[in-house]
Amino acid sequence: MIRTHEAGTLRKEHAGQKVTLAGWVARRRDHGGVVFIDLRDASGSAQVVFREEDHAHDLRAEYCVKVTGEVRQRPAGNENPDLPTGEIEVVASEVEVLSESAPLPFPIEGSAGVSEEARLKYRYLDIRRQRIADALRMRSQATYLANEVMRERGFVYVETPNLTRSTPEGARDFLVPVRLQPGNWYALPQSPQLFKQLLMVSGLERYYQLARCFRDEDLRADRQPEFTQIDIEMSFVDQDDVIELGEALIGRIWKETLGYELPTPLPRMTYAEAMARYGSDKPDLRFGVELTDLTDYFSGTSFRVFQAPYVGAVVMPGGASQTRRELDAWQDWAKSRGARGLAYVLVQEDGTLGGPVAKNLSETELGGLAGATGAKPGDAVFFAAGAPAASRDLLGAARLEIGRRCDLIDESQWSFLWIVDAPMFEEDGEGGWTPVHHPFTSPKPEWADTFQDNPGEALAYAYDMVCNGMEIGGGSIRIHRAEMQQRVFDVLGISKEEAESKFGWLLEAFKYGPPPHGGIAYGWDRVCMLLAGGESIRDVIAFPKTASGYDPLSGAPTPISVEQRKEAGVDATPKADKPESAQ
Amino acid sequence: MIRTHEAGTLRKEHAGQKVTLAGWVARRRDHGGVVFIDLRDASGSAQVVFREEDHAHDLRAEYCVKVTGEVRQRPAGNENPDLPTGEIEVVASEVEVLSESAPLPFPIEGSAGVSEEARLKYRYLDIRRQRIADALRMRSQATYLANEVMRERGFVYVETPNLTRSTPEGARDFLVPVRLQPGNWYALPQSPQLFKQLLMVSGLERYYQLARCFRDEDLRADRQPEFTQIDIEMSFVDQDDVIELGEALIGRIWKETLGYELPTPLPRMTYAEAMARYGSDKPDLRFGVELTDLTDYFSGTSFRVFQAPYVGAVVMPGGASQTRRELDAWQDWAKSRGARGLAYVLVQEDGTLGGPVAKNLSETELGGLAGATGAKPGDAVFFAAGAPAASRDLLGAARLEIGRRCDLIDESQWSFLWIVDAPMFEEDGEGGWTPVHHPFTSPKPEWADTFQDNPGEALAYAYDMVCNGMEIGGGSIRIHRAEMQQRVFDVLGISKEEAESKFGWLLEAFKYGPPPHGGIAYGWDRVCMLLAGGESIRDVIAFPKTASGYDPLSGAPTPISVEQRKEAGVDATPKADKPESAQ
Repeated sequence: MIRTHEAGTLRKEHAGQKVTLAGWVARRRDHGGVVFIDLRDASGSAQVVFREEDHAHDLRAEYCVKVTGEVRQRPAGNENPDLPTGEIEVVASEVEVLSESAPLPFPIEGSAGVSEEARLKYRYLDIRRQRIADALRMRSQATYLANEVMRERGFVYVETPNLTRSTPEGARDFLVPVRLQPGNWYALPQSPQLFKQLLMVSGLERYYQLARCFRDEDLRADRQPEFTQIDIEMSFVDQDDVIELGEALIGRIWKETLGYELPTPLPRMTYAEAMARYGSDKPDLRFGVELTDLTDYFSGTSFRVFQAPYVGAVVMPGGASQTRRELDAWQDWAKSRGARGLAYVLVQEDGTLGGPVAKNLSETELGGLAGATGAKPGDAVFFAAGAPAASRDLLGAARLEIGRRCDLIDESQWSFLWIVDAPMFEEDGEGGWTPVHHPFTSPKPEWADTFQDNPGEALAYAYDMVCNGMEIGGGSIRIHRAEMQQRVFDVLGISKEEAESKFGWLLEAFKYGPPPHGGIAYGWDRVCMLLAGGESIRDVIAFPKTASGYDPLSGAPTPISVEQRKEAGVDATPKADKPESAQ
Repeated sequence: MIRTHEAGTLRKEHAGQKVTLAGWVARRRDHGGVVFIDLRDASGSAQVVFREEDHAHDLRAEYCVKVTGEVRQRPAGNENPDLPTGEIEVVASEVEVLSESAPLPFPIEGSAGVSEEARLKYRYLDIRRQRIADALRMRSQATYLANEVMRERGFVYVETPNLTRSTPEGARDFLVPVRLQPGNWYALPQSPQLFKQLLMVSGLERYYQLARCFRDEDLRADRQPEFTQIDIEMSFVDQDDVIELGEALIGRIWKETLGYELPTPLPRMTYAEAMARYGSDKPDLRFGVELTDLTDYFSGTSFRVFQAPYVGAVVMPGGASQTRRELDAWQDWAKSRGARGLAYVLVQEDGTLGGPVAKNLSETELGGLAGATGAKPGDAVFFAAGAPAASRDLLGAARLEIGRRCDLIDESQWSFLWIVDAPMFEEDGEGGWTPVHHPFTSPKPEWADTFQDNPGEALAYAYDMVCNGMEIGGGSIRIHRAEMQQRVFDVLGISKEEAESKFGWLLEAFKYGPPPHGGIAYGWDRVCMLLAGGESIRDVIAFPKTASGYDPLSGAPTPISVEQRKEAGVDATPKADKPESAQ
């Protein structure tokens, strides 16, 4: 090492010692012949004093320097109690510039006003900021802790391939041409799902991997074309076993990084209850404001809009005092979500009901509404009516928006829970069914024999871990019996040929004594974002891309040259025969 | 869990307990009404006894079953001391077939005669074999140990991107079309080299990652298109620091998995010495048979072939008794390596020299040859003459072949060493220079100012860890000064434009106070292969591909459909402007 000490570790016990430090010039203050420099390295920073200006003459911001000097206690009154090294300073006797820095595109300290594009273009400077460096360190710590838990529990860390088989139906697969087999392509995996199930057929019983996944999809806010999963699969287990493991994993991480004790066992809520009470399959329980089901209440209404299969409401505390403009903004908000609008009633301070909907309601309907919804004088009541799923979804989103606008969310709290008993299938809008999870998800034991008779009611043996209104992990018990798998394919209308083309190699494996198995995957970027208190997963990714998949740092992606194209076999016609696999 | 115990954990202390096991039918023996089954799970296996044949009637090989029964000590004389559970058996009272197995393509026990293609096609059955399962578990254990060491030493685990920038010169990059930016492509990284150096510029100081790397190259035996590196980079370090860390990492792994104590500090050998003595930059020191430099010895020879810039020899013990056919085979062997042949002299038991070369040598040359090479009566002496590098390379390969044919290699030994002081540059055959490592490799301190004056002599600050004749890790101290980097580019004939195009974003980063840094990467597949005692890296990869990049399991790679091609934007013309990076 070209230094003897890390700057952030110096304390008054070191006073009198000669030390050599190496790091970056973080701040410089000139005081008439005496120059003070904050020398920053990965451990923190220490104040260095240059008594003759000559030595410090050339030192500018973010120069990388090596300084030798003597540690001394700071003169009384000059201590900085906010800094771990605030009681000492290093009186420099030698200084060497290890490398210079050009003028910075933005200051390292104080990030106000720096665009994200600039930050990502100069990501290496962005990471010199405490907040980003701390977030990456937090992620590292969490990764080590995950390894520790899984190792203690006997999981086998297995790396699965990233160059895999594409399927004609596999939209959103990234494709990779193969030079050695011109005209043939690999696909990058959207998850190691098939491989981890194969590992269960292999008899490894407990699989774990920090797995990179790829998805070439329209990037909504805060998605990345590549992301990381903590990927887990276990044999001979039941739902409770996977849930217990998940709580142990997340519990250890939260405890060791944040000192937060997860209240295990975590509450479990059924999907149906979550949708009914919160209009979401990932409810944020850090605040109340539950949905009210008014379908029965309005069963005899003459108001056309409420003559619907579902009528529900959510109350905005104090919402009656919103301005006309604020109330209009709610309509725009609802329309931006694809709804026609957001009906509302305002409960005046005297208990009378106002707003455009009120005049369509009967006296009886008006009279009982506050009681039925729990609205108090001064509140607003928002309604949604129509198909249950879409209406609850709208009310659930309104609930979150109310939580934000009314500042109801206690950011210091953690709200963890499991959502269980999700439906196996949902209507595909064309008279058929699609799987809510994936087609290998087992029905709950009580639906094992009958799910095909009532696909809309059948419940999946699936579980999602939700934290602060975000799904951070999800999994299921898988189907391991060919006969049951066939019934699922039948419900989904997947033909034998299609199943063969899509999952043929998994189905083939399942002929050879597959064990009962199940698993879970945690969205690692999201987990780490929550841990680090970031607002975007980009905060916990060293080199993230923008929403369009662009990397401002390297400029990727780029066009390729004619030679590259030829070399990669992009335009080659594949040979009709499968390539032989000679070793 | 659907079982109470793991089969392999049962001992005679469990006698009398009722247990439920779950696993696979590994072996079945019928003994007149009594059926014995070896039930195998991940923990091992236990013998299960069915007293009525009915219960066991349906159980065939590799059925997955759940068995409940009582543990009892085996009757005296029936113990199996080779099996951890050999003192007990489980008397089955209930059995449930969890899933059936079709007839197997090959037996799980006893792998003789199974082709590798079949093994890879049914890899999930192959992994049920003890040897492969153990190899994957060994790899897992090694991975956990690597994490442990790096965590203890304060390394930050950072995941670097797999979707990166391609460069026009980047032959062997896998390319990935980007749907959201039609006509633009990512490249998969051949290593995280640039990113880990950026992380040093970021000030993280200690980086570690289990990194997936990709290389679309002609696959020589035992290469894979994707492979894994233990990737490490450190700031403010010198060569000794990286070497110490490497020894700690590999030392911990060998000790904890195999109980082998690495003799640290490991010996270091210069590249020049390794080439001179062993004709290899990764010498296998588990046996002797060193090269002899005979250039001076033959400086006055009249034998044309030996009038060469280098003449060397290697002795094959007992090689004089080889048949004509064996000696001819050496010629073929040499030719297959691109040499013209392999000159030899046979030292007869009476000390006279035979073989075709002998008659071209003078009496004096013949008289001193045994002494000069250390050959004893009965040995053969193989020669190479010509350019030093090629000749030593041939003799080094002959040495290894001699080691194998003469069974000189003690397979129970471990031979670890470092090769240091490799040359910075080698001739590119066209009058220029190419880097032996990569263009960011620093010269040794004593060559810092002068390497450009004598590129052929200059030594790199690089180090390779060699184990049993394989390079398992390699790294270097990097250049962090723009001025020195420019001199390297000048030697390599890399223009400003080319440097900008290839490494522009790294060079840009290096303007902002880059710290002195260096690192190392271990070829994880190879390390794990050595640990597991495998013969191929495919033994320690869960789902490997064949040498042509083909995956017999999934059938990847495959042609893609017209729709996929269109969707992925393979044939789109990229927009002239860089895509904006709106979030």
